[in-house]
Amino acid sequence: MARTVATQLDRLRLVLVRTHNPLNIGAAARAMSNFGVLHLRVVHPYDVAYREARSAMGAASLLKNAEEFASVADAVADCSLVVGTTAAEKRELHHPLKRLEAGAKLIRQRLRSNANVALLFGSEKRGLLNEDLAHCHWLMRIPTRQEHGSMNLGQAVAVTLYEIVRDAKAPATTKGAKAASAAEIERISTLLLDALRESGYLKTSSPPADDKIRRLVRRLAIPAEDAEVWLGIVRQILWKIRDADKR
Amino acid sequence: MARTVATQLDRLRLVLVRTHNPLNIGAAARAMSNFGVLHLRVVHPYDVAYREARSAMGAASLLKNAEEFASVADAVADCSLVVGTTAAEKRELHHPLKRLEAGAKLIRQRLRSNANVALLFGSEKRGLLNEDLAHCHWLMRIPTRQEHGSMNLGQAVAVTLYEIVRDAKAPATTKGAKAASAAEIERISTLLLDALRESGYLKTSSPPADDKIRRLVRRLAIPAEDAEVWLGIVRQILWKIRDADKR
Repeated sequence: MARTVATQLDRLRLVLVRTHNPLNIGAAARAMSNFGVLHLRVVHPYDVAYREARSAMGAASLLKNAEEFASVADAVADCSLVVGTTAAEKRELHHPLKRLEAGAKLIRQRLRSNANVALLFGSEKRGLLNEDLAHCHWLMRIPTRQEHGSMNLGQAVAVTLYEIVRDAKAPATTKGAKAASAAEIERISTLLLDALRESGYLKTSSPPADDKIRRLVRRLAIPAEDAEVWLGIVRQILWKIRDADKR
Repeated sequence: MARTVATQLDRLRLVLVRTHNPLNIGAAARAMSNFGVLHLRVVHPYDVAYREARSAMGAASLLKNAEEFASVADAVADCSLVVGTTAAEKRELHHPLKRLEAGAKLIRQRLRSNANVALLFGSEKRGLLNEDLAHCHWLMRIPTRQEHGSMNLGQAVAVTLYEIVRDAKAPATTKGAKAASAAEIERISTLLLDALRESGYLKTSSPPADDKIRRLVRRLAIPAEDAEVWLGIVRQILWKIRDADKR
């Protein structure tokens, strides 16, 4: 993760309001740690034992450093953008409701401009209440199916944070199998052409026919590490054909 | 969700290989249902009681219809693209490794061209083994932090499926607060201008100064439902100023 992105995410506060199940707080902490969002704030958790949640696998210190607040107002006091999350498509009448894709873009913009942003998640059963929403500038919704809109809290946190950190412009392939070099492909092709001629598959040596085979081999996209093996295979086949001819 | 997208997702099979915790199978099922991916396949689950997992909240029928297979080969037999998932950045030497953003794009393309696609998730502790990877065309990785790469299985499934169904071109605001009309803004501005002149804030009536105030009001983005209230507020203030002047 680039240093600048980490600095920006340092201005994001994830606020869990009245979470019932401590395992969900742990799961949220784990997802936060996975995506580099390290400031967890908790408002009125039902179970104070959440700091020991085993579901925070690998994120114990994040959970230990979670800040507890008595009210949403206190938890968002240092933030100039407060975003609520909701599973409902129509419930709220007083807030603009944005799809996650668009909302995350606005959040990234605000983080880039040095603003602190709070991201609120309500309780598992009832979500955010009207009194919580009063602190929100707008609401955001993960584009789930209408037939089954309600997500597990830990999964909703993971998806939301992923969308905020995702980078469509990142190099597509982190580490690809290195392709065989043109020289290696040519050596394999040459041996294969010999084998095809000696086996009678190719009647004569004609440049168009040879090129067709070369293209065929190139389309295999042989990985660099496999080139020697393929060379050995074709060499062996060629030897066998020649040996058979001799008898 | 558009009908065509649902038809495309119908060709996606999510394959859980040697999953230990039945709660994770349930959580995966819930995320699948949330995002409209309905074909779950299970290979060698450790706990056969997974079909009753309570974590599948709202996705019981999806879990009930899960297909069980004795091998990865059988589970992916009807798929022409098989994609493995991994938390490792470097472990695999024999497969191209793509970031989720890029991999999901390729998966969408294949689904659009009527191909069946299998998406494999390995066990919680060890992930996919080399024998599983032998069936994969390439691997995909969620862009988690290097310091804490390993995600919870249910969260990883949720994030992966979200990326496959996300739609950057969808309308940004599902339902926004309707903005006040230009006429309402103009009525509020006119009353405010009167109040500013009578209060001495504006010395004379100059079109540039008036326009500055109009732009100021427009930038407030007053919601339609609040227009009457603001009109009342400014009207009352104007009345008070005039009343004070009379005395």
